[in-house]
Amino acid sequence: MDQNALKALVGQEAVKYVEDGMILGIGTGSTVRYMIDALGERVAKEGLHIVGVATSDRSAKQAESLGITIKQLDQVDHIDLTIDGADEIDDNFQGIKGGGAAHLWEKIVAINSTKNMWIVDESKLVHHLGKFPLPLEVIPFGSTHVLEKLDGMGLHPEFRMTEDGHHVLTDSKNYIIDLHLGRIDHPHELANTLNGIVGVVEHGLFLDLVNTVIVGRQDGPEVLNARD
Amino acid sequence: MDQNALKALVGQEAVKYVEDGMILGIGTGSTVRYMIDALGERVAKEGLHIVGVATSDRSAKQAESLGITIKQLDQVDHIDLTIDGADEIDDNFQGIKGGGAAHLWEKIVAINSTKNMWIVDESKLVHHLGKFPLPLEVIPFGSTHVLEKLDGMGLHPEFRMTEDGHHVLTDSKNYIIDLHLGRIDHPHELANTLNGIVGVVEHGLFLDLVNTVIVGRQDGPEVLNARD
Repeated sequence: MDQNALKALVGQEAVKYVEDGMILGIGTGSTVRYMIDALGERVAKEGLHIVGVATSDRSAKQAESLGITIKQLDQVDHIDLTIDGADEIDDNFQGIKGGGAAHLWEKIVAINSTKNMWIVDESKLVHHLGKFPLPLEVIPFGSTHVLEKLDGMGLHPEFRMTEDGHHVLTDSKNYIIDLHLGRIDHPHELANTLNGIVGVVEHGLFLDLVNTVIVGRQDGPEVLNARD
Repeated sequence: MDQNALKALVGQEAVKYVEDGMILGIGTGSTVRYMIDALGERVAKEGLHIVGVATSDRSAKQAESLGITIKQLDQVDHIDLTIDGADEIDDNFQGIKGGGAAHLWEKIVAINSTKNMWIVDESKLVHHLGKFPLPLEVIPFGSTHVLEKLDGMGLHPEFRMTEDGHHVLTDSKNYIIDLHLGRIDHPHELANTLNGIVGVVEHGLFLDLVNTVIVGRQDGPEVLNARD
């Protein structure tokens, strides 16, 4: 089965967990795009009433075009389930997100969700986190000093730049620094350390957050129960 | 002596610590304004060469009008000494800043300074921190949920609003939440807790940072050695 067919199957599997009346967090990414399509089909066929809270304008627009009501996070009092992608998931179901420079808003949505589901292709499953560069969202003011500090800590930081040599800007107008770590042995310790660095708004470690992972395997979607 | 005369004396005392060739962090506030005036006098009379890094546009403009070169933080490789105000300083020389909604940039400047000096009137000296509301800079996206979470933790949060009912915006375009705590018994623990809350960019606790405090007493400025 080709990659897109696998992603479509994963998206269809994911929306089976969506129930009528839910407030649904909607992530961003190529697999999520198929999930939104599948959700639109359920809304059209079954008349499901869903309110979506999106982590990007792109997902919001796609969902709205399929008849799904979109609200802002600050307009809802909770989220029942968020379905999003991930860049890496380790054996303990800890994750890295932020390849799309949206991990701050994604994390804010995730921590306000009763349940979180990640939908990924099998290349995202790893034994240890860290091969994927760990993204940090940082305040532009003084960011060269943050980079220097991270470098001094041996964390191999690098500003994420656009092709024409400008800083990549997040939705909150901050910069991204990617840490090229190779392997993260103690993600909780690293998260604590990064939380304490002045100028770092948020890191891309998503720890103890995901409840369900759906993986696109060659022989079809596999559902993994990460934690209750 | 009236309040302004006291502040002027404190400002004059503070600039005695400025040496030729220094890169100087310049804070914001009414006492700092007198310090900048006194610095301008030394620059004019003695021909001091100083590079200033300001925590606000207001201070930058005042300093430039007095012939002081201003650079951005990301244009210098270090700061020798930062002179700033504070909203509260306790018996252990721990502080609260952020009454002016600028504590994020002030903290970024402070942690990149070899030495920090706070210049205050004596009303800012307290035995325990917390009577002054502790400011948090928070990401607007999802901020109602951050407020709710802080409320659930018993931290008495309140959005800081303008007189016409809008959110006060920081220089980084974030919101301010003030915590009305009354008394902070364990500032380091509180700082750690706040560092771990997703959506909180930075809190106004300035711990283990200040080296020298100059207090405007009725009988003249008093210099306190906080830590080396």
